[in-house]
Amino acid sequence: MLESSVLTKMKNIVGSENVVTDKQEMICYGYDATQMEFLPDAVVHPGSTEEVSELIKLANSEKIHVFPRGAGSGFTGGSLPKGGGIVMPLTRLNKILRIDSENLIAEVEPGVVTEEFQIEVEKQGLFYPPDPASLKFSTLGGNVAENAGGPRCVKYGVTKDFVMGLEVVLPTGEIIRTGGETYKGVVGYDLTHLICGSEGTLGIITKIVLKLLPLPEAKKTMLAIFDSIDGAAKAVSTIIKNKIIPTTLEFMDYATLQCVEKRFSLGVPETGRAVLLIEVDGDSELIEKQALRIHELIKPLGLVEFKIAKDAAESEALWKVRRLVSPSLRDVNPDKFNEDIVVPRSKVPDVIREIEKIQKKYDVPIVNFGHAGDGNIHVNIMVDKSLPGQEEKAHKAIEEVFKAALSMNGTMSGEHGVGLAKQPYIQLELKPEQVAAMQGIKKALDPNNILNPGKIFPL
Amino acid sequence: MLESSVLTKMKNIVGSENVVTDKQEMICYGYDATQMEFLPDAVVHPGSTEEVSELIKLANSEKIHVFPRGAGSGFTGGSLPKGGGIVMPLTRLNKILRIDSENLIAEVEPGVVTEEFQIEVEKQGLFYPPDPASLKFSTLGGNVAENAGGPRCVKYGVTKDFVMGLEVVLPTGEIIRTGGETYKGVVGYDLTHLICGSEGTLGIITKIVLKLLPLPEAKKTMLAIFDSIDGAAKAVSTIIKNKIIPTTLEFMDYATLQCVEKRFSLGVPETGRAVLLIEVDGDSELIEKQALRIHELIKPLGLVEFKIAKDAAESEALWKVRRLVSPSLRDVNPDKFNEDIVVPRSKVPDVIREIEKIQKKYDVPIVNFGHAGDGNIHVNIMVDKSLPGQEEKAHKAIEEVFKAALSMNGTMSGEHGVGLAKQPYIQLELKPEQVAAMQGIKKALDPNNILNPGKIFPL
Repeated sequence: MLESSVLTKMKNIVGSENVVTDKQEMICYGYDATQMEFLPDAVVHPGSTEEVSELIKLANSEKIHVFPRGAGSGFTGGSLPKGGGIVMPLTRLNKILRIDSENLIAEVEPGVVTEEFQIEVEKQGLFYPPDPASLKFSTLGGNVAENAGGPRCVKYGVTKDFVMGLEVVLPTGEIIRTGGETYKGVVGYDLTHLICGSEGTLGIITKIVLKLLPLPEAKKTMLAIFDSIDGAAKAVSTIIKNKIIPTTLEFMDYATLQCVEKRFSLGVPETGRAVLLIEVDGDSELIEKQALRIHELIKPLGLVEFKIAKDAAESEALWKVRRLVSPSLRDVNPDKFNEDIVVPRSKVPDVIREIEKIQKKYDVPIVNFGHAGDGNIHVNIMVDKSLPGQEEKAHKAIEEVFKAALSMNGTMSGEHGVGLAKQPYIQLELKPEQVAAMQGIKKALDPNNILNPGKIFPL
Repeated sequence: MLESSVLTKMKNIVGSENVVTDKQEMICYGYDATQMEFLPDAVVHPGSTEEVSELIKLANSEKIHVFPRGAGSGFTGGSLPKGGGIVMPLTRLNKILRIDSENLIAEVEPGVVTEEFQIEVEKQGLFYPPDPASLKFSTLGGNVAENAGGPRCVKYGVTKDFVMGLEVVLPTGEIIRTGGETYKGVVGYDLTHLICGSEGTLGIITKIVLKLLPLPEAKKTMLAIFDSIDGAAKAVSTIIKNKIIPTTLEFMDYATLQCVEKRFSLGVPETGRAVLLIEVDGDSELIEKQALRIHELIKPLGLVEFKIAKDAAESEALWKVRRLVSPSLRDVNPDKFNEDIVVPRSKVPDVIREIEKIQKKYDVPIVNFGHAGDGNIHVNIMVDKSLPGQEEKAHKAIEEVFKAALSMNGTMSGEHGVGLAKQPYIQLELKPEQVAAMQGIKKALDPNNILNPGKIFPL
């Protein structure tokens, strides 16, 4: 519980209309895309960098925990106010400050919704590639804090590859700038990339300088159905080896295909065991040539069906298969544990086979799809929590899935982060010396551990 | 001076043949591409990660300063043993451990020479783009520590964009892994990018996992001479706006042109005031089309000469102009202060004009060339140190050049780092709060300040 004198001070900083202590309203700020929920002591909505700084100084002197929050669309509980304290949504800071088409940069506030930003830059013939699945509601600040990915990352890179500079309020209240507005810059340590993906534990992002690209002239979508996972995986490396780096190389396994087919009857051939949704972008003549070349390259790899979209409508129809995955999953079981392991591209078939074994061992349905181009597989363990023992089984299966990925030089998480959800498993991936180095940095910047405490590293 | 017991311990770790205390020999490890020189107390050549770790543990317990060193080709004194201590060349760790063409990654030791690595990967149809001018002798470890750039960065990015993971010996001797072998990974803080560009102050790099690309099918070189700097600068943004991102966009100003012309009589037209060396790479049909399109786009911008190389020999002839710059400069004056400011691309003409004013004010010749595509200009202040007052003038001019770049939202250094040379100016760019955050991190990882002390931040 917060003392009323503290609440008064917060109201003096942001205005009383921006301090929420009503339980009903606070519930909206205590959940995310996990099934976890916690109630904060207050929700405080700052309207400027200076207000963030004043709030943090107050919290730091009073040792009150602060949980920064974007749209709350995270998959690992990174923004949840576990243990109580203040939730600080950055959603009032929602302006696109400038789009500089001459230098291909933009400056935005953290609360700008990703897709809205993309639409704005595309109006000017520019392009911001990172495309997390949540882009219709997630914010750029949240994307940076979690270093969000998406299908287009195989060609263009993840969020942090587009972050050139930040304005950050440190956990002790100082306002700093990191990085800058130039593509090169080597004066001092790279705090920009340290903050990216630090899940709101090292600073509160109040401004973001983003790199933009010219909008590709055209794109071409293809759907390829293979008679084996190995064929699909081999197709990925064959395409890339032949100097074509597609924008997206989305993968769906047999279980995923069955889910979608059962519900939507799309007419997937019976011999289909794995699907790749392939998109290339760039010069319009070049991508025509690339699409034909891709077909030629993957034909010998057990291809049972191949479609090239002729226009935007046909492209949309092909993407439909991928987009129907999520709504189909709940037919398998009501509760989903959505993990996002990554393995080196060539290990995708091996890890899928390992996951099949784990599925049999624990008798829980597992559905795999994701970004094959960068080896990032979304492993969805589908259970019914209302049945006894199911959740426990899921946790055991998750641990084995992580171990399988790590044994192939992979990682537990390519996009979702650690937050609360993956914390019990962090020692599988990080050695004590690595954790100690990270915690040393955390302590240097946040001596009182007030900023998003208990995330990534156990308290 | 080191105690003999310490020397004995070091000999026990690496073998006595790998501990050098002979002055004559040590001189070779006390200089770099600056004109500074310092003599260490010993030069110790470790042969493995474990030896590095043992040496660092010893140095940390005895509070001996350690200066890691690659090829000593740095421009800012980053590897120099100022104040004495141990120089630790990483050149015995010079193996390419593997090139994985399936997953487009390589693992190398830090002492591998950049160009040798490029040649090896190109044999397999792969590509490692970062190309600092020193690539014939600089090491990959040094490139990572300084986050080296080069002409190709405008399209492909700088060294750190290709570093996926590291093995690092921390200043307290622990061996850690950072990052990994996957393109995505969000478990814990990004220590990889923190170490990149930290100039050997946060850890000693003992292994590097690098990202590779498929080798582009072909390239096309063009030389464009303009009647004004503005024309050349406008050409850069016009090309990029038209969705062509060249591999290189090298710029030379009038002073540079005159230097080269005076010495080598290449027949540059008299009305030429600025040159762009443009290269595109990729699909061979596409780059033909791009070259024609580039010509068409830049024709109205005061173009006085335009050449497209038909083959490799002609390409080499065009590159010659750029390559002759460095050997020509010493004709102006014997001593060079080579700075590498960056400004947002569109500000290149403005900053060149500011530099012209500074040149007049201090009456010192300044020659500008560099990477116009990313606004990274090499500003060469040419003096004769043997003349009284010349060096002082150069330092005053440098400070004003930095201020000009910073006033345009630029940076003092795009590629060279801070080291010792730019330390007196660091407060022009970084605010005390930024420096405090960086020093907090340094202190957390290196509590005894033994690793490359006195670099970046003043002691």
